[in-house]
Amino acid sequence: MTEGLFTANNTWMLVSTALVFIMHLGFATLESGFVQKKNVVNILFKNCMIIAIGLLSYYAMGFNLMYPGGDGGGFFGFAGFGLTMPEGAAGLIEYADGGYTYWTDFIFQAMFAATCCTIVSGAVAERIKIGPFLIFCMLFVTLSYPITGMWKWGAGWLDARGFYDFAGSTLVHSVGGWGALAGIILLGPRAGKYTANGIKPITGHSMPLAAIGVFLLWFGWFGFNGGSVLSADPGNVSLVFVTTSLAAAAGAIGAFIVSYFMFKNYDLPMVLNGILGGLVGITAGADQMSPGESIIIGFIAGMIIPVSVVFFDKRKLDDPVGATSVHLVCGIWGTLAVGIFGNMAGMDQIITQLIGIASIGVFTFLFAFAVFFVLKATVGIRVDEEEEARGLDIGEHEMQAYQI
Amino acid sequence: MTEGLFTANNTWMLVSTALVFIMHLGFATLESGFVQKKNVVNILFKNCMIIAIGLLSYYAMGFNLMYPGGDGGGFFGFAGFGLTMPEGAAGLIEYADGGYTYWTDFIFQAMFAATCCTIVSGAVAERIKIGPFLIFCMLFVTLSYPITGMWKWGAGWLDARGFYDFAGSTLVHSVGGWGALAGIILLGPRAGKYTANGIKPITGHSMPLAAIGVFLLWFGWFGFNGGSVLSADPGNVSLVFVTTSLAAAAGAIGAFIVSYFMFKNYDLPMVLNGILGGLVGITAGADQMSPGESIIIGFIAGMIIPVSVVFFDKRKLDDPVGATSVHLVCGIWGTLAVGIFGNMAGMDQIITQLIGIASIGVFTFLFAFAVFFVLKATVGIRVDEEEEARGLDIGEHEMQAYQI
Amino acid sequence: MTEGLFTANNTWMLVSTALVFIMHLGFATLESGFVQKKNVVNILFKNCMIIAIGLLSYYAMGFNLMYPGGDGGGFFGFAGFGLTMPEGAAGLIEYADGGYTYWTDFIFQAMFAATCCTIVSGAVAERIKIGPFLIFCMLFVTLSYPITGMWKWGAGWLDARGFYDFAGSTLVHSVGGWGALAGIILLGPRAGKYTANGIKPITGHSMPLAAIGVFLLWFGWFGFNGGSVLSADPGNVSLVFVTTSLAAAAGAIGAFIVSYFMFKNYDLPMVLNGILGGLVGITAGADQMSPGESIIIGFIAGMIIPVSVVFFDKRKLDDPVGATSVHLVCGIWGTLAVGIFGNMAGMDQIITQLIGIASIGVFTFLFAFAVFFVLKATVGIRVDEEEEARGLDIGEHEMQAYQI
Repeated sequence: MTEGLFTANNTWMLVSTALVFIMHLGFATLESGFVQKKNVVNILFKNCMIIAIGLLSYYAMGFNLMYPGGDGGGFFGFAGFGLTMPEGAAGLIEYADGGYTYWTDFIFQAMFAATCCTIVSGAVAERIKIGPFLIFCMLFVTLSYPITGMWKWGAGWLDARGFYDFAGSTLVHSVGGWGALAGIILLGPRAGKYTANGIKPITGHSMPLAAIGVFLLWFGWFGFNGGSVLSADPGNVSLVFVTTSLAAAAGAIGAFIVSYFMFKNYDLPMVLNGILGGLVGITAGADQMSPGESIIIGFIAGMIIPVSVVFFDKRKLDDPVGATSVHLVCGIWGTLAVGIFGNMAGMDQIITQLIGIASIGVFTFLFAFAVFFVLKATVGIRVDEEEEARGLDIGEHEMQAYQI
Repeated sequence: MTEGLFTANNTWMLVSTALVFIMHLGFATLESGFVQKKNVVNILFKNCMIIAIGLLSYYAMGFNLMYPGGDGGGFFGFAGFGLTMPEGAAGLIEYADGGYTYWTDFIFQAMFAATCCTIVSGAVAERIKIGPFLIFCMLFVTLSYPITGMWKWGAGWLDARGFYDFAGSTLVHSVGGWGALAGIILLGPRAGKYTANGIKPITGHSMPLAAIGVFLLWFGWFGFNGGSVLSADPGNVSLVFVTTSLAAAAGAIGAFIVSYFMFKNYDLPMVLNGILGGLVGITAGADQMSPGESIIIGFIAGMIIPVSVVFFDKRKLDDPVGATSVHLVCGIWGTLAVGIFGNMAGMDQIITQLIGIASIGVFTFLFAFAVFFVLKATVGIRVDEEEEARGLDIGEHEMQAYQI
Repeated sequence: MTEGLFTANNTWMLVSTALVFIMHLGFATLESGFVQKKNVVNILFKNCMIIAIGLLSYYAMGFNLMYPGGDGGGFFGFAGFGLTMPEGAAGLIEYADGGYTYWTDFIFQAMFAATCCTIVSGAVAERIKIGPFLIFCMLFVTLSYPITGMWKWGAGWLDARGFYDFAGSTLVHSVGGWGALAGIILLGPRAGKYTANGIKPITGHSMPLAAIGVFLLWFGWFGFNGGSVLSADPGNVSLVFVTTSLAAAAGAIGAFIVSYFMFKNYDLPMVLNGILGGLVGITAGADQMSPGESIIIGFIAGMIIPVSVVFFDKRKLDDPVGATSVHLVCGIWGTLAVGIFGNMAGMDQIITQLIGIASIGVFTFLFAFAVFFVLKATVGIRVDEEEEARGLDIGEHEMQAYQI
């Protein structure tokens, strides 16, 4: 490999890293927009701390848990605390066949790792205590995400089994979604959401912020999926750009149509989440689909969104931003779709995909449930009623988001 | 060509694609900021749907209408529905002399195509019915934009004639502007804007949103113009960065000076539109100008903005965001400037540029006028008075943008 | 060097340019968020004009003052007005050993130059007259920033002396900070901030805007520090991504801990400024530190923030956005840290770093103080009391930021 190609590859991976980073702003604005005015400082604070804790946790342990090296095929491995650059690796073509350097490898993966906590953040918003939530995040990024991540991307047993998850419909998004589900089960719904007289919608306080979030997430997804090629290979990265974009577009249309028939109006939050659903849906197979197939996958993901949101609401699982519908349900759909459409379609692959979905789901849900359960039993995870009513901004942060 | 150079080229084109994508967020925030609070959900909804419909329409037909292949020099061609990757093309250096792959070609062009509808969106804001508008968008991106685009970029008759439009002052911006003009003529002004006692300014509801939009558009323009080099050629792309930035800066100064003399204050919306005017103005010749010439072109474009805004207002052509001034008038100016300044300056070129401006203008205006006319005569294009007064957010979307 | 490598290098430098550009939106939103509602249009207007004036000033004189060429080691040099591309340089590998073209060199440096004025902008907000401020900006970017910049980056006497400042903890950030300090000394505090009954905090009007600003600044810092490698060298750029990100993360934690102990709450503005402090702190030595060292540097920078903010407030130096703490104090800290940690650590280096900090500090502070002093003595630099109370948006711009 020439130095020119190596440099082009590594540059693309670093651009992708920056794009995945900006997804953290996307989540911060999306979640801010979808919560009430009184809880905005809290969401912003959480998202600042998540990226900080996420990067440092992944530096301290996560990276070496997720990529322990060795022969592969295993359930668990650990290559030691902190980062230890392999002898002469940084800047050397040999580290990853010229795709990227050791430092690029770490920072790209670290940006990914932190996103799984932001998914949880939105679902548990407006009622969780900030201290326990940050402890959960640290444990989730340090232990849970890297262990299940290793099963596939770290050459673990699911990888050996043939499970496919290109950029993380399961490894990132449904992992975040399972964490979110565990959290909202143990937290319970926001006060006043599910009443004797039915469900009272609690509208987000700023649609511009929510829309900014969705566009920034789409923008970042070019790095999330495009960087998952792990090089700047022209054919693969450009195909991934096409499938990712068309799936997002089709997700908007799918959510638009279904929500129009369900609610008889033009529902902006549904279309916003439809775009995200399309993006999550294509993530597992973005490099395996034709443009036409990516449209079908995204369209179905978008149609799932309004149905899923209503489903969770009927079960009184209160998720202010729809994170479980977007990341968990569409993450499962996208992972399954790898067995249904595209280059890898086949009954065997569907079964393998189901094994991956189930095993990672069970591990992650139990881990998250256990952590939240212990926190609930000890320090408590929910703010008191009075604080919830006044808002967490005053209660936890002694300030308000706006002086308007 | 080496694999390293091909990879660097293609990577730059994909980065440009992502940058052009983020212009859609720029338009969404700019337009949101410049409309009234009661119509913000509507603008955001439109911008989400525009990118979705735009990408899918361009996939379905637009791309193959705009780049039909063949001998060139024609008025119309069509290479079939959907995308059909030429045998062995993706990832092959041969597809475009090593500049980019087939998939990159499509997705970069698709992001461009969708922008021309967002230009219309701002001008017709606060009074157009959403359903008919989306139908217009689909037809505009599927048929009108690609046909006139082919005349130049698809090796059509204007290209053979020597017409020059580097990145689309005419092909994208004035096309959007003509569509906008047709729309606002048929729609009429917003209620209460032009009264017996003169023009009542209707101020945008959020200057931070508008400013975010302008900065994001400038940011995206690095891909819009920089990507139009169609490779990462170091000398050309870097010159384009310089001319684009200096024109934008000079546009701010031009609009500042003229608006200061016209209105005796420091007018933020004029400076914001002055930046955009400078960007639109340099777009046709960004690769043909010296830095000094780009400053002159941008400065004049900026000076045009306040004059043009007043001009349209005097004719009761109500454009809430100034899209016709920015994209139509400065688009024409920039296209003409290719004949006045830079490497291609000359009377013959000026005449050729005028032919291009006029032919594309006539086609686009008639197309857009006809579509809006038919829609007006059938389903209607304007919301009723009561809905306009209450705002389209409640009327079309049953929600409000803010709970503040 | 191959064309492929040259193209990859130059492409990265242009991507970095775009990323540094978006820092201007980061500053605009950060500063907007931290000021009162009545001064938001003013901040946005200033930030639009700063980038415009900055680019044009740097084009007119700054670039050739900062990079005069010649033998090096000097205090002052000038290569003439405007840009004159060296014979055959653009697009040629020879210009900078294949790192980038002449045009890239200019535009990357120009984006940097403009940032130093935005730092001043935040500190003097809510009370400075816009006209004199813009005059200051023009002089600062045209003369002061390039002269001290030349001392190091233009191969001047500090460079010959061994002073090290990788990406500008001193040359950019503390330069902006010294300008800010001169401004706030001569302007005096905002009315009502320091009263007989103690300090009255004046809370920023929008925390979402402030948070958007910080995330965009971090995003842009990938180009600010990553581009300062002056090529896409895989090992160096990727290390810089790692150190930059970890320092930012550690800055958040440092500010969180100290502010928690000082104020007994979860203080969002402190954490936001802690992130920025970490970024400023790592900037001088981002290519010289191990990941662990970058965490220490960022953590200390973050801890400095709350202490420094209180320090300035006690001295009645009123800085609405904390720019002096972030850019001046952490800039000094980061420059010193190059002598304490990493590859260059040593007592000699510490002394050299102190010489650089002091000489650039004295020059910049005197320059800025002199300019503001003359402006104060002639046209005046502060709006009158009534205008300050009503807000500069009405007073200078005859409009309000929001119609909500």
